Amino acid sequence: MRKSLFSAALLLAASVFAQQPITGFSAKAAQEQAALEAKFDAQLSAQRIGQYIKDMSARPHHVGSPGGEAVAQYLLSKFKSFGLDARIETYQVLFPTPKTRVLEMTGPTTYKAILKEPALKEDATSGQTKEQLDIYNCWSADGDVSGELVYVNFGLPEDYDKLASMGIDVKGKIVIARYGRSWRGIKPKVAQEHGAVGCIIYSDPKEDGYYQGDVYPKGAWKNEYGAQRGSVMDMVIYPGDPLTPNVGATADAKRLKREEATNLLKIPVLPIGYKDALPLLSALEGPVVPEEWRGALPITYHAGPGKAKVHLKLEFDWQIRPAHNVIAMVKGSQYPDQWVIRGNHHDAWVNGADDPISGMAALLEEAYAVGELMKTGWRPKRTMVFCGWDAEEPGLMGSTEWVEDHAKELQEKTVVYINSDGNSRGFLGAGGSHALETFVTEVARDIEDPQTKVSVLERKKAQEAARAGSVAAKKAALSSKGLKLGALGSGSDYSPFFQHLGIPSLNIGYGGEGEGGSYHSIYDSYDHYARFKDPGFAYCHALAKTTGRAALRMANADIVPFDFRSLHKTIQGYAGEVMALTDQLRETTAVENQLIAEKKYVLAADPTEVYHAPTAKEPVPYLDFSSLQNALSAFEKAASTNTTAIAKQQGSASLNQALYKAEQVLLSPNGLPRRAWYRHTIYAPGFYTGYGVKTLPGIREAIEQREWKEAQEQIKITAAAIQDLANYLAAIK
Amino acid sequence: MRKSLFSAALLLAASVFAQQPITGFSAKAAQEQAALEAKFDAQLSAQRIGQYIKDMSARPHHVGSPGGEAVAQYLLSKFKSFGLDARIETYQVLFPTPKTRVLEMTGPTTYKAILKEPALKEDATSGQTKEQLDIYNCWSADGDVSGELVYVNFGLPEDYDKLASMGIDVKGKIVIARYGRSWRGIKPKVAQEHGAVGCIIYSDPKEDGYYQGDVYPKGAWKNEYGAQRGSVMDMVIYPGDPLTPNVGATADAKRLKREEATNLLKIPVLPIGYKDALPLLSALEGPVVPEEWRGALPITYHAGPGKAKVHLKLEFDWQIRPAHNVIAMVKGSQYPDQWVIRGNHHDAWVNGADDPISGMAALLEEAYAVGELMKTGWRPKRTMVFCGWDAEEPGLMGSTEWVEDHAKELQEKTVVYINSDGNSRGFLGAGGSHALETFVTEVARDIEDPQTKVSVLERKKAQEAARAGSVAAKKAALSSKGLKLGALGSGSDYSPFFQHLGIPSLNIGYGGEGEGGSYHSIYDSYDHYARFKDPGFAYCHALAKTTGRAALRMANADIVPFDFRSLHKTIQGYAGEVMALTDQLRETTAVENQLIAEKKYVLAADPTEVYHAPTAKEPVPYLDFSSLQNALSAFEKAASTNTTAIAKQQGSASLNQALYKAEQVLLSPNGLPRRAWYRHTIYAPGFYTGYGVKTLPGIREAIEQREWKEAQEQIKITAAAIQDLANYLAAIK
Repeated sequence: MRKSLFSAALLLAASVFAQQPITGFSAKAAQEQAALEAKFDAQLSAQRIGQYIKDMSARPHHVGSPGGEAVAQYLLSKFKSFGLDARIETYQVLFPTPKTRVLEMTGPTTYKAILKEPALKEDATSGQTKEQLDIYNCWSADGDVSGELVYVNFGLPEDYDKLASMGIDVKGKIVIARYGRSWRGIKPKVAQEHGAVGCIIYSDPKEDGYYQGDVYPKGAWKNEYGAQRGSVMDMVIYPGDPLTPNVGATADAKRLKREEATNLLKIPVLPIGYKDALPLLSALEGPVVPEEWRGALPITYHAGPGKAKVHLKLEFDWQIRPAHNVIAMVKGSQYPDQWVIRGNHHDAWVNGADDPISGMAALLEEAYAVGELMKTGWRPKRTMVFCGWDAEEPGLMGSTEWVEDHAKELQEKTVVYINSDGNSRGFLGAGGSHALETFVTEVARDIEDPQTKVSVLERKKAQEAARAGSVAAKKAALSSKGLKLGALGSGSDYSPFFQHLGIPSLNIGYGGEGEGGSYHSIYDSYDHYARFKDPGFAYCHALAKTTGRAALRMANADIVPFDFRSLHKTIQGYAGEVMALTDQLRETTAVENQLIAEKKYVLAADPTEVYHAPTAKEPVPYLDFSSLQNALSAFEKAASTNTTAIAKQQGSASLNQALYKAEQVLLSPNGLPRRAWYRHTIYAPGFYTGYGVKTLPGIREAIEQREWKEAQEQIKITAAAIQDLANYLAAIK
Repeated sequence: MRKSLFSAALLLAASVFAQQPITGFSAKAAQEQAALEAKFDAQLSAQRIGQYIKDMSARPHHVGSPGGEAVAQYLLSKFKSFGLDARIETYQVLFPTPKTRVLEMTGPTTYKAILKEPALKEDATSGQTKEQLDIYNCWSADGDVSGELVYVNFGLPEDYDKLASMGIDVKGKIVIARYGRSWRGIKPKVAQEHGAVGCIIYSDPKEDGYYQGDVYPKGAWKNEYGAQRGSVMDMVIYPGDPLTPNVGATADAKRLKREEATNLLKIPVLPIGYKDALPLLSALEGPVVPEEWRGALPITYHAGPGKAKVHLKLEFDWQIRPAHNVIAMVKGSQYPDQWVIRGNHHDAWVNGADDPISGMAALLEEAYAVGELMKTGWRPKRTMVFCGWDAEEPGLMGSTEWVEDHAKELQEKTVVYINSDGNSRGFLGAGGSHALETFVTEVARDIEDPQTKVSVLERKKAQEAARAGSVAAKKAALSSKGLKLGALGSGSDYSPFFQHLGIPSLNIGYGGEGEGGSYHSIYDSYDHYARFKDPGFAYCHALAKTTGRAALRMANADIVPFDFRSLHKTIQGYAGEVMALTDQLRETTAVENQLIAEKKYVLAADPTEVYHAPTAKEPVPYLDFSSLQNALSAFEKAASTNTTAIAKQQGSASLNQALYKAEQVLLSPNGLPRRAWYRHTIYAPGFYTGYGVKTLPGIREAIEQREWKEAQEQIKITAAAIQDLANYLAAIK
């Protein structure tokens, strides 16, 4: 039976894409690798992936739940049955679940929020009410607050500036913000900074409902009851168990008191659907909000405050619960102490067929195929590690605790961490370490898109060219052949590997055509997924091929394929951006100050409405970027020398280790200002964007916040890290 | 009593703005003119303007109605009572009114449209149902059609391109378009061009309803029943009575048959409110429309077609009716054959307190003040003509017929035509002949803004600076001191003077803060106007000061203040635009053709949806702009020479006439391609924008339509006109 799997017919089918060079492999090795990959592909089954998804999303399986435990055991037994060396590593993490949830309007009329998504006959698992986590934001504070309601748009700092210009402040009030634009945790954090006593976050149909498309169950989008659960931990300070920053949350770990955790909110926060939001927003008085603040509800959006008052009462069960990471290993034949790690989380807010099970299922199928290859006697040159993380949803807890627990070993051994998460029909999306740009381009070149039958690279490039906004951007897209990796912020399990330890990381998935608003609701189900997200599981199949190929190439390469010239080019681009940003800010500030001084804003405002003009800002000084520029020159030279030097080598354990550890040189010993857990000088989640990345974060955020002294310090720190990397690379012969 | 009006206290109040130079006046004459203007201002009363508005909007007064006749008589008697030489000049124009209006959905469910705005207790005139014109689009064809419904967004040519890309055509179908973006008449015209058999135009709450602000009667915006009446004559071919193009519609004029009129539609078209639109749009199937097509109704917008079918039956009473223009004159003391004409229409769709009565009332008050000045023995140097036009709403018929009837005399005598129309609280808006830019700047400099007490010029400049999008635009706005005149397209009575006869024209009004959606509905009432548009009538008062001052300065100037350097600078800018447009189009076409050839669009499209990629376009050739550039050089030199020559003169009848007739040299003898009525080579309403202007229209529209041969011809024609003007100006010594 096994032999027939490797038949000529299958090899023929796999060779539609003619064999091309693979960086890090000799011509002969590349040929062998291509043959291996064809065998690997032949093992993969979309149908089996669909069955995994059905199995693992069969019941709610959040952290610490019976369903969660069952999924961990399912993964463990599957890995073992595939022939992998698998175990469960459990950490003890804080995880609050809701006990009391009351939201009611007390004036000018009364309304009691429903806070519940109904079961639907079209959705087989939607009626599992006993095991479903109620709609809530994890890490909301306990609270019982009442106050006037104010609408704050997306709840970002600039939204409060706009409110201030309208004479509205939120001190002592309850704010209602809509989902979107930023990571959700930013909204209550900024509300709290401005003195609000409570925060409601609702899904406006503009972003996630009928405005986007037909609603569930007719279509894929959020119906009026659908609400987005989710974490509001201030992950941009540090992720993981809030009580054990920097160390693994083992049973006997030393723990902070809850009040000492600097990433937890002090105010209560609750997500709601748009059916519950409508009466609240309709009751608001005060000025009509600016056009860009208006959603798709059939009302005039007012800012408040006024007679509309709400009462919000929330209580949580603050228990420490077990988080079960499932770890499976295949020992490397040549470099057993060099690890290629592949991970996806397995916990969900409810059933989570899309998030995270679609990616988890692809990973499981990769492990299956590797197991099948092993049955033929094959072994990877490097050790392959397959991880199913628990407790990602509340704050990347499973992965972070494991990474913190094993930090030293991981920094020594890890070649690359390859992450995935929810996956659906569409285009390849890939982000991560820019020294891996050529590597990912070559992988994408060799994968066929299930729908169009061109390579996923070609389809991605077509998308870039077709969607480019300007003629210049279209031209640039037409002339660029390689894949551009995105920069990674936060939002999935690569964060501790990448931003805390400096381990080269990739985050890979397909998407863009699997529509819908099932995200973090009870409707993220097998029925929804199979109808709307990835019918036939073709893109889960493609993901397994993609991430599987990436892992296999990293595991087998003669010389691990890092290209620091790409990294240089990318950082050079970021440096250009922060320099231009400073200049733009200087010019904008001067012009704005003139507009303010000449009372242009006041004269242009409608005198019948309250208007407070902005105050003038300190002029923007010239910063000294020379250390950064000099370091980048040195890095450019070193990257080029390094490439030439490597080309002459055969590959050895020490050379490979020197290459994969290089990115760790970019870590700053003291980490970023006010959030030392984040140590990467090139990539971090934004302090006020959350998931959204800030590149050269120390420099960029200081400039954005107009902290000129800090900006100058951060330029020095970043330049030093880049210079160190240049020296490090120059030393590799 | 009269003497006290000219007391020292009033003169003091008027001299808040220190006396400044006035172009066209000697220093001494400027001082006398300033004193005259102070006296003029002192006559103006906001309260009296409010009373005119109340009187003239007391009942519906569309063309040919008893209310319309009453308004004409009211104006006549007022002008006469002020001491002006007034008369009514009546033309006989075609004007269809509705007899049968049926709109119903026949599948998949049934719905019969209400087509009626209810009376409101908060609006005293809203219950005058007997005299109100029913909701309709004037110049719709008679028709009884049924068909599948297709949503076409704003109904512009590019919207049909988008539908084609989705595999949808409208042949034999009924389209529903939303109001906005273009002039309404473009929508059925383009629908007809694409083979639709009927057209519905609805007011989406996004553009005109709760999305913008609270709805009437709580707020100013269109409620769900409110519908926009209005003309759908193809005015961009020719305005005025469709049966008498180019000649006055006198009783005995030779008339076309209705079928021969090239500016009338062949398909039925009906406007509706959003309450009637909701069931129709909700019933649509087919693809979800692109984001920029979605309005603010609480539905998923689909394009159709499908089971949604509608039946539209419309019949009209195609009568010829009298249009009563009211003309009042004050004979000039020095140059009786040089006319300064001030006009506003008096007909409305229903009560029309805003449109047109607010502007009409300001004009009437200007005439009152002039009458009061005449009682002191004062006379203007030039003849002043005050006009109240009838039949503007159906297609500028009153003014156009009068202009066509008196064309020769008007071209000889008219110094300037100064138009106004609906007016409300806010900022000065002024458009017109760019040789008058300095003139209008000086007027604006000398008018106090009622709310902020700075000059309306300063407030306008503040608005420009505050709203400028980019830093560069803000800087430009901060450094520019003068008013930029807008270029005029169509939509009010300046069109026949300006674009047909080449008479220097201005269109002046205030607005931007008088919110609301009463436009062309029964709610355009005194109650609505006084609450929302211009409380206290302060901006009607300001308009009377502004247009009054403009007329008085033109009437009294030693030398009429045309500055052809401004005109040159403006046309030079337009020439730069059309040259850049050609280059951009060439680059865009090349890139688009490459995207198409490389199948980027097809590969980027969702394979589960119908998608037709655009076809490649002919490459854009290089055009010869040298004749235009050479003519502009000559014009620049002549404008400068002309300015120097004039500075040495005292003023004479012939010099003044030579100056005010100069713009007529820019007329093209054959007019624009396919619409010879439009003869101005610099300004015209756009063939596919309607009200929206196209500058250098012959050249620009040929380029936009990719008619390269025609573009080259139009460059020559336009260049010749500009060269002729240069020669003409050079000859003025």
